[in-house]
Amino acid sequence: MLQLSQVEAMAMTPKELREIIRKGWTGITHNTCRGYGQADMVVVPKEYAFDFLLFCNRNPRPCPVLDVTEPGDPHFKRMAPEADLRTDIPKYRVFKNGETIEEPSDIVKYWQDDMVGFLIGCSASWRWSLRAANISWRRYGAYRTTIPCVPAGRFHGPMVVNFLAFKNSHDAVRAVQISSRHPLLHGPPVHIGDPADIGVKNLGIPDPSIPYQIAAEPPKPAEIVMSWACGITAQIAAVESKIPFMITHCPGRMFVTDRLAEELAVI
Amino acid sequence: MLQLSQVEAMAMTPKELREIIRKGWTGITHNTCRGYGQADMVVVPKEYAFDFLLFCNRNPRPCPVLDVTEPGDPHFKRMAPEADLRTDIPKYRVFKNGETIEEPSDIVKYWQDDMVGFLIGCSASWRWSLRAANISWRRYGAYRTTIPCVPAGRFHGPMVVNFLAFKNSHDAVRAVQISSRHPLLHGPPVHIGDPADIGVKNLGIPDPSIPYQIAAEPPKPAEIVMSWACGITAQIAAVESKIPFMITHCPGRMFVTDRLAEELAVI
Repeated sequence: MLQLSQVEAMAMTPKELREIIRKGWTGITHNTCRGYGQADMVVVPKEYAFDFLLFCNRNPRPCPVLDVTEPGDPHFKRMAPEADLRTDIPKYRVFKNGETIEEPSDIVKYWQDDMVGFLIGCSASWRWSLRAANISWRRYGAYRTTIPCVPAGRFHGPMVVNFLAFKNSHDAVRAVQISSRHPLLHGPPVHIGDPADIGVKNLGIPDPSIPYQIAAEPPKPAEIVMSWACGITAQIAAVESKIPFMITHCPGRMFVTDRLAEELAVI
Repeated sequence: MLQLSQVEAMAMTPKELREIIRKGWTGITHNTCRGYGQADMVVVPKEYAFDFLLFCNRNPRPCPVLDVTEPGDPHFKRMAPEADLRTDIPKYRVFKNGETIEEPSDIVKYWQDDMVGFLIGCSASWRWSLRAANISWRRYGAYRTTIPCVPAGRFHGPMVVNFLAFKNSHDAVRAVQISSRHPLLHGPPVHIGDPADIGVKNLGIPDPSIPYQIAAEPPKPAEIVMSWACGITAQIAAVESKIPFMITHCPGRMFVTDRLAEELAVI
């Protein structure tokens, strides 16, 4: 597999990264393209597009919609007009009736004329702003919670969140402030405190229902643990709702947009 | 017609106001129910619901969506579950092929099982916060601009805005700050400066394409004029796009929600 150093990855433009992805790079995008907005991707046939868009509208914390393609058009005209959503994500997941049938590195063979693509803003985008404010944290992967999403048509399921642990109140408060500026990138936390409150009993042990998550040391008692809604909520909705056909990115392998996170901020 | 004093109107709860509306009150809601979120309403058959929801998603300044009903259900479950969208707005507009065919005080006879209702947050809601900050302004009604909306399916048209004129920079800056907290209620201004920049040559003379607007003195040279996107954009889109069937509220006669504007703020 193609290797990228962390320094190279951070300094790349989204266009440069896409060229590497087309050459076969399948790595994690979180620390690539410093400052640019990254997004989860969902593709569904037009038949399910209204239900999915409504699901997003009713669940704006996990599923803030950045862009929607025309049916059959593989280009996100507002977020990255030159990118091709079928080839420019490192790794995809293809769902049939709620089962993952393949995790390919492109989806050209699955593409149909009635497909509609959605980009969902990702909180990895504003973690650059935390770094810029000299805030440090420990990150835990994605977990299913007991928080139900508001259903819409065929789509239902629990909210998925990411956890960050902060050493002190100052850093935690700044993280609330900074993430609040970015409602299109999941916005502020959905929970502060004991992860067990929202159904996560063993933070640090990966959630078996979400692939590509890694183990980590559990938080220390003095740390402040907060969770932010996560776009993987849409993948779990595909599973729970047994959607006949849906394609998404693979966790950690995002669509990198041409828009800076700051461009997407509301204030 | 039933009369309400300004003091009575401001002090009412949304539930009390709806009772008055059901008894035949057809007045302007802007200064009723102090602090509560008000919304523009749009009803379309399910066939056009995806295109309209996508139009809103692509044009979040004029059309921020607060709630969407299930097809055939006349209740906005999240914003005002006990209200009936067919009777609880003072006055409606019924469009066929882009023409207004009636402005009834209820839409019971037009209701169909496939209808989907949308609530679009209105900036009248955060003007209470301007008052609370001791800011004064002169208000102009709604005007079509030369700013194009991003089309979506059958829906296209120009952005409609409201103008406010402020006496000094302090008040204008505070208005930018306060409105920015409310992206679901049109958010910050879309333009600062000469209204002619966006196609409005005679501010103060009502736009003939928008009913129920009143004349006002033009701004003074020292005043700072800013415009905010307006939900009447959806009505002009109905006209421009010749949508076969669509129902909206009448300008100034809004749906009053059970949620306080502060509950809808992002920060």
